[in-house]
Amino acid sequence: MSLVQQRTSCRAYEPKPLPREYLELMLEAARLAPSACNKQPWRFAVVEDEAMRMRLVDEAFLAGIPMKWAINAGAIIALGMEKSAITHKIAPKISGVDYPLLDLGIAGEHLVLQAEELGLGTCWIGWIKPKKVRAIVDWPKGIEPVGLITVGWPITEKRKTRPRLPAEEIIKWL
Amino acid sequence: MSLVQQRTSCRAYEPKPLPREYLELMLEAARLAPSACNKQPWRFAVVEDEAMRMRLVDEAFLAGIPMKWAINAGAIIALGMEKSAITHKIAPKISGVDYPLLDLGIAGEHLVLQAEELGLGTCWIGWIKPKKVRAIVDWPKGIEPVGLITVGWPITEKRKTRPRLPAEEIIKWL
Repeated sequence: MSLVQQRTSCRAYEPKPLPREYLELMLEAARLAPSACNKQPWRFAVVEDEAMRMRLVDEAFLAGIPMKWAINAGAIIALGMEKSAITHKIAPKISGVDYPLLDLGIAGEHLVLQAEELGLGTCWIGWIKPKKVRAIVDWPKGIEPVGLITVGWPITEKRKTRPRLPAEEIIKWL
Repeated sequence: MSLVQQRTSCRAYEPKPLPREYLELMLEAARLAPSACNKQPWRFAVVEDEAMRMRLVDEAFLAGIPMKWAINAGAIIALGMEKSAITHKIAPKISGVDYPLLDLGIAGEHLVLQAEELGLGTCWIGWIKPKKVRAIVDWPKGIEPVGLITVGWPITEKRKTRPRLPAEEIIKWL
């Protein structure tokens, strides 16, 4: 609960590199996430290289959205989805739900909460150009980029909490 | 990390009711989750009523999958998705990704990790009949059921950990 309460999307970072063991811990938390049929559809590309991070910010973010702040994140992690027949073709036909995408949310958030525990800031970014991401991180066609997560040393005074809907509006007790 | 390492899908519960404040804490963790454009597309129906839980297990789970264990869970929480124009119609056209579904994964996992911290067991269930879930919890058409999470007092000796892919197979360092 304390991690959840503390976490906000962090869009201001100090331009300092990240300890490799911090990134490894975050990815380990993601690796252990649960998934539909234990399919583990997640793939991660951890971009620490500065030139490559610049390319992601310049080319893979949707134009018109100011994302220059992301350059100071020590790493940008691309989240990709590996397609599988059971969960992608059979399950959606039965229940109408694309579970691997939900699973990516679970795994990505494990990573985010682990980062929070280490004192790092993160931001989920969905407004991306998937093909550009794939080209930059050089993933094969079978891996579908679904988002990016920036990770860095937060400038904490710039943190902002956004309001949430009241509990009564989203929860029904039966 | 300790919560993530400890968590396994729990399919054996002692048939005991849950403290209301535990459920409230779990839902509060979910309520505070991040989401695309802060749209908070999640809706929750917390089913504690025994007859209604029986109906969910009998009618809303996919036939052929043995789910009788779920009856002993003190609560079954339905996760629903409230549709919104920006994230559902515009974003998928641009990036091809249905972000609210990813957001539901994030929020649901906040709930699951909070339950773990309280010593409760949970299990994500995706093989459901969405229309049946909607009918039983009486949600309007605008809310799309995407999954159920069982919550209960775990019979810990029956816990099983399922293997995960090795890190090298899912992570690329750049």
